[in-house]
This record gives sequence, structure tokens and C-alpha cells, in this order.
Amino acid sequence: MSMNFFDIISKSTECAARTGVIHTDHGDIETPCFMPVGTQATVKTLDSEDLKTLDPEVILANTYHLHLRPSEDLIEKFGGLHKFMNWDGPILTDSGGFQVFSLGLQKTKKQESKKANAHSTLVEIDDNGVTFRSHIDGSIHRFTAESAIETQRKLGADIIMAWDECTPDDADEVYARQALDRTHRWAKESLHAHQKNTTYQGYNQYLFGIIQGAGHRDLREESARVISAMDFDGIAIGGESVGYNMNATKEILEWVMPLIPEDKPHYTMGVGYSPMDLFTVVENGIDMFDCVAPTRIARNGTLYTSEKKVAENVSILTKEGLEEVPIQNKYTLNINNAQFREDKSPIDPTCACHTCKNYSRAYLHHLFKVQEMLAYRLATIHNVHFMLELMREMRVAIREDRFFGLKQSWTQ
Amino acid sequence: MSMNFFDIISKSTECAARTGVIHTDHGDIETPCFMPVGTQATVKTLDSEDLKTLDPEVILANTYHLHLRPSEDLIEKFGGLHKFMNWDGPILTDSGGFQVFSLGLQKTKKQESKKANAHSTLVEIDDNGVTFRSHIDGSIHRFTAESAIETQRKLGADIIMAWDECTPDDADEVYARQALDRTHRWAKESLHAHQKNTTYQGYNQYLFGIIQGAGHRDLREESARVISAMDFDGIAIGGESVGYNMNATKEILEWVMPLIPEDKPHYTMGVGYSPMDLFTVVENGIDMFDCVAPTRIARNGTLYTSEKKVAENVSILTKEGLEEVPIQNKYTLNINNAQFREDKSPIDPTCACHTCKNYSRAYLHHLFKVQEMLAYRLATIHNVHFMLELMREMRVAIREDRFFGLKQSWTQ
Repeated sequence: MSMNFFDIISKSTECAARTGVIHTDHGDIETPCFMPVGTQATVKTLDSEDLKTLDPEVILANTYHLHLRPSEDLIEKFGGLHKFMNWDGPILTDSGGFQVFSLGLQKTKKQESKKANAHSTLVEIDDNGVTFRSHIDGSIHRFTAESAIETQRKLGADIIMAWDECTPDDADEVYARQALDRTHRWAKESLHAHQKNTTYQGYNQYLFGIIQGAGHRDLREESARVISAMDFDGIAIGGESVGYNMNATKEILEWVMPLIPEDKPHYTMGVGYSPMDLFTVVENGIDMFDCVAPTRIARNGTLYTSEKKVAENVSILTKEGLEEVPIQNKYTLNINNAQFREDKSPIDPTCACHTCKNYSRAYLHHLFKVQEMLAYRLATIHNVHFMLELMREMRVAIREDRFFGLKQSWTQ
Repeated sequence: MSMNFFDIISKSTECAARTGVIHTDHGDIETPCFMPVGTQATVKTLDSEDLKTLDPEVILANTYHLHLRPSEDLIEKFGGLHKFMNWDGPILTDSGGFQVFSLGLQKTKKQESKKANAHSTLVEIDDNGVTFRSHIDGSIHRFTAESAIETQRKLGADIIMAWDECTPDDADEVYARQALDRTHRWAKESLHAHQKNTTYQGYNQYLFGIIQGAGHRDLREESARVISAMDFDGIAIGGESVGYNMNATKEILEWVMPLIPEDKPHYTMGVGYSPMDLFTVVENGIDMFDCVAPTRIARNGTLYTSEKKVAENVSILTKEGLEEVPIQNKYTLNINNAQFREDKSPIDPTCACHTCKNYSRAYLHHLFKVQEMLAYRLATIHNVHFMLELMREMRVAIREDRFFGLKQSWTQ
């Protein structure tokens, strides 16, 4: 691990919250930070100029999707993801494990449903890796620890993730134990593969390990100890429920955080559905988190606002289609609602994003109603700006040791 | 008509091409100019900042669509279209006639097809106007000369169009004669309605008349004389074939141009599918033209390039779905083609647009393949820039009296 990879700048006296700086060859990452997700080499609807304006500390890209299209070999020919997508800030890639194992979960769900799809019927886990069918063309692919690291090396991200098995929440202890043993073996193999070459075209790459263990306290604690003992540059906490079920997430953090080294960055994978979720993980000492929700709900017209209002059900697009879900915080509005038809105010009166500076709720309502593509970009810009701005506020509050004050102003 | 509405700046000695300036309260329009189409208060995929960067002389919006959603009354509450969409340059609105009568054409086609749609079965023309069903919700609407002008007044465009009947190409002389008589009566009524109030919230509005007459020389000539004799601020040439069939368009221009006053702006409605089409109408003394093709084909991956290559078939999205059509010029590429998969060059090596400055053909190819929305915006930016830049070159060439030289460099 590089000596200066992570510096802790300040610590809250109220809780485990802290600020820090992760140093990468594509720039410093101020923590705690929310990482927008750029699955297929674009944060959906945004280009690199939009990103530069929004100024995220780091963006995430998905190894699984990029492996399938356009492939890590093609991206390597372009000098890596930074050059391919014209983004010169820090990038983190996941290992692809979450998506591969999600196919496995989908498989079960699809076999129960009538929408069975011949393409998604193969996810075979063995002790060395996973063989799976592409959800796009049915072609056969295989990920192992070595290939997942090699794929991420070619993508050229600044921070890459160990190959792991993302087990379902409800895995029984026997299965969860098998999966965790694999994850720990793969962690070691990932580290070994990474250490053969920790740079990509002159840029350092840093490898994070991932704690798994489903919902079992003993496994989670064991995993925290095992992963923490290895020479990773950062420690991530993964699992199906992390981010999706914040009560479960909090419980897992209570188990594992005491066992994780303080001097490495802490990353909860998949957290960031609502502003409240950000407070929850930061309070528990987490430095980084990513979530597709802010951009996904944006494209459905659910927009963050600092105005306090009662929560409501919103429709979100999931892999299964449109689903009605209760949104977990009080700081959203659904721009599709008729009440915004003639509303001349911006989405959020206190917001300084491009969308709020230039367009009314009524204009956005109209764009959503007539399904103009511009709607989705303007909404995405707003939701990403909102999350990044909240993180900037949070970092200042931690440095000034008034984290709970800021949290209270959002939760009361 | 305002004394200084249109100034002719220079005339070609080689042909009827000329440059000029149309003065509006939202800025000067340098002619000849291509007008990007912003049907529903956005040039599809672009926001007003994108437009400011592209810097079109004037954009077009569609009265029919805006009347249905969000309605002229709502837009008026926002102080007009300029404020609603945050675009402070000149805007032209059409009368809605083309879309209403297109529904009539669709009706015939749909009755022949199996996709019959209960919503699109009413377009009833009488001597005073047209009653039609919304294609969205089946609600009944009526346009007359007076209501079309009133609707456009509320939208607040700088240039508005007389209410006309857009007759099918193959209308027989009896029907075409009836339709033309209506168009001429409606032209007079439009002018009368307009003259009651030629300003909108302090901004001048200018009214153009439209020459119709289908494919009949005698009717076209009569229409040119009748419309030219009225006190319109500009003269448009409409019809189903204008723009879609350039041979027919050229023939119509040969008939009518000698009969139109030189000192008014000349506008061919629906022209601009290919760079060649622009040369054709400008050569014949046309000052303004609009077409959805550059933005529509962009969203399908057909991109203009100055590189000379053989024409090919491209798929374009029409109201009927995807259609394979031969593209009429040699200056396009289909970014979906496998040959661009690893191509590091920009779409057009000579282009200075945002897309060409920042992204490779390979990146665009990838975005189209994975259907990322960003693809459609970047492609639109390029195609609109390309057409606007060609018009800038054309204006310089006319001023320097070397229009044929420029045309030859594009056609040989």
C-alpha cells in the first residue's frame, strides 16, 4: 500500500464520522464522498463536460457491463476508461461480482415468473470463479479472481475491487459459509494478481478488499478480520442488503466497523438511495459509497429537494420493470405530479445546479409528460448535484465538528 | 410590415442566392439560415445552453404539439416560449396545419394497415377550419385562421405563420383548387387576426404567408401572386413534397420564385435533409428553411461528415416506425457500423463541435450500441452544428460571390 494513499484530515468527536483525502494519480478524492455510477462509461444521460461541472470526487464504472460491451480489450486500446470516456478525474470499478450474482438471483425470480429468458439461465459458481451467460447475446463468459483483476487493470481505474461472491440476504449459514470461504480465497488471489502489476500505463491502481457474510454476525466479523489482515488499500462492505436495507446495513456496520483498520478508506457498496442514508453511513465511519438510485429515480421524475415534505410512493424502474416503492426520505418530489404543471419555481429553491438555475418545475413537468430525453438529463444533473452538494456540506460540518447539527437539520 | 424587418446584404452574380438580415426583437437572423426544430419546446435532446453554444440564428417550434401539451395558455403564463424554455434568441412557430393535415394522411394510411388507431380517425376540414382529435388523448380540437394566430400569439414567437391547408402531393386539380381557395381565404383571415395585435408582451411578431397549390403549376403560380399581394412580412412555400422530394421542390421554386417580391424573406418549409438540399434552395433565392431530419437521423446514428463517401441506406424513425431509406447525399456515416468500433478519430476530422472535440467515433459507436441516452445528444449536437456551420460557410461564400465554388467543392 502506498504510504500516502489515504490521509485522515479530521474526526468528529460526536461519532465515527471523519474527513480525509484519498490520493490518486487522477486527482485527490475528498471523503466522505458519494460516487455517481457510470455503468457503461457514461453516468446515464451525462457527458464528461456535465460531470466536470458537477465535479464529483470520483465516479464508478461497472466491470461486468464494460466487459460485455465494448470489452476491456477495446478500452485498453484507447488508453483506458479515462481516455475512452474523456473523464480525467478518479474512477473506481467494481469487480463485476454483484452483477454476475444478480443474474443468479434474477434466474430464480424469472423461473418463477412467466418472463423466463433463455439468456439468463446460467450462473455457475465453482471454487475458482463463475461461469455465466451474457444477458445481451447469451455468449458464455467466465470471471475468476485473476480475470476480474486483469479486466479492471485494462479498464485502468484508479481504484479496483477484489473479486467476491455477493451472497443473497437469506443465504443459510451453510451456504453463506461456503460463499465466504470462496470470497476470502478470491480476496487473496485478487491481491496476488494485483501485486504483479499495480500500475496501468504509468498510473497507480489501488485494490480494495470486500467484506461479505450475508446477515450472519459471526461470518461478518470473521470476514472483517480476514479482509482487514490483508494488504488491501481500502476496505469495502458488500452484500445484497447493503444500501437496499438500511436497518440491515446499520447492523452490519455495528458488527464490522470495530474490526476494520481506521487508517484505510471504508466503502459501503450500494449506499445512497436517500440523503438520510448518507448520514447513516458517514456517522458510522464510512468514507465512500455509490448508488444508482439518485440517477435512476431522476429518470423517473423523482427529484431531491431540501424542502421538507411527507414521503410518498414513487415508481422506479427496476430490472423487472416499473415498481411502486415508498421513498425512504422526506426530501423528494415527483415532478410528474399535476401540482407542478404551472409551478414557476426551480426544483429546489436553494439549489445552484444548472437545472435549477435555468428551468422551472413547470418546464420539467412538461418535458417529463411529453417524454423528451432532455427531461432525464436535467433531472439527473439535479439529483447528482444535490447528493454531491450534501456531501460537501457534510465534510465541512465534520471538519467543524458539528456533524450532528447538520444531521438534525435534515432529520427533524 | 416593419420597415427594417429584412435587409438584403449581398447578392450572388451567379444565381439567385443572397445574404440578408432579418431583424427581430430577440436578435438578428442572418440569412440564408437553417432552423433547427424544437417541436415540444426543446430541440430534441438539447437544452438551451447546448443551443447557445450551437448558436442557431433562429429555432422553430411546433404549434400543434405545444397546443396539445402543455397548451399555449400555460406557456403564456410563463411570458411565452422564450421564457418557458429559457431561450432568448429568435423563435419561429408554424401554424399547426402541417401536423393536423398529416393526421389526415395518416388516417388514410392507417385505415389500410392493421395498426388502426381510434384516436387518429378524425380530421374534418370545412371552409372555416379543421376539427381534429388529439393523437395523444383523443380529445377534440379545432383550428381556424383566427385561433391558429391567437395560439401563436400566446406562444410569443418572433415569426408566426398563416393558417393554411397542406394538401397531399397527389391531390387532383379539383381538390387542390378547393384547398387553395381555403388557404387563400385563411391567409387573409390570418393577416386580419394578426393585425389586431402585432406585438406580444412588448415584442414584435411578424407574420409570413404560405404558398400552396400541390403539384399544379397554375395553382402554384396563382398562389404565389395572391400571397405576394398581401401584406405579409415574409413568404413561405409549403406543401407535402417541399423538402421531401427535392426534384418537385426545385420545380415548384422555378414556378413561384419569379412571382415573389425580392425584398421579403423567402422560406421553404421542411427543407434540410442533406447538405445538398441546402445548396439547392439557397441557389434559388431561399433565405430560411427548417427540417427535422438532421436531428432525427442523428438519433438513429446517421451523422454528417465532410468526408466524401458513397451514399448508403440508413434506417430512420418515422411515424410508422423504422424505415430503410437511401440517404440523399454522400456526406454521412452510420456510426452503428462495425467499422467504427475501434475508430479513434472524431465523427468529422474538420468539425469543431463539442462532440468532435471531445469524443471518438468508437465512444459514440459504443454509446449507440448500448443505447445510452448520451449517444442521442452528442449525435444531435454534431448534426446541428454541421448544418449551422455549412450555412455560415455559405453566407461567407455568397458575400464573396463564390457560391458556385463552394457548391462545387461539395458536389463534385
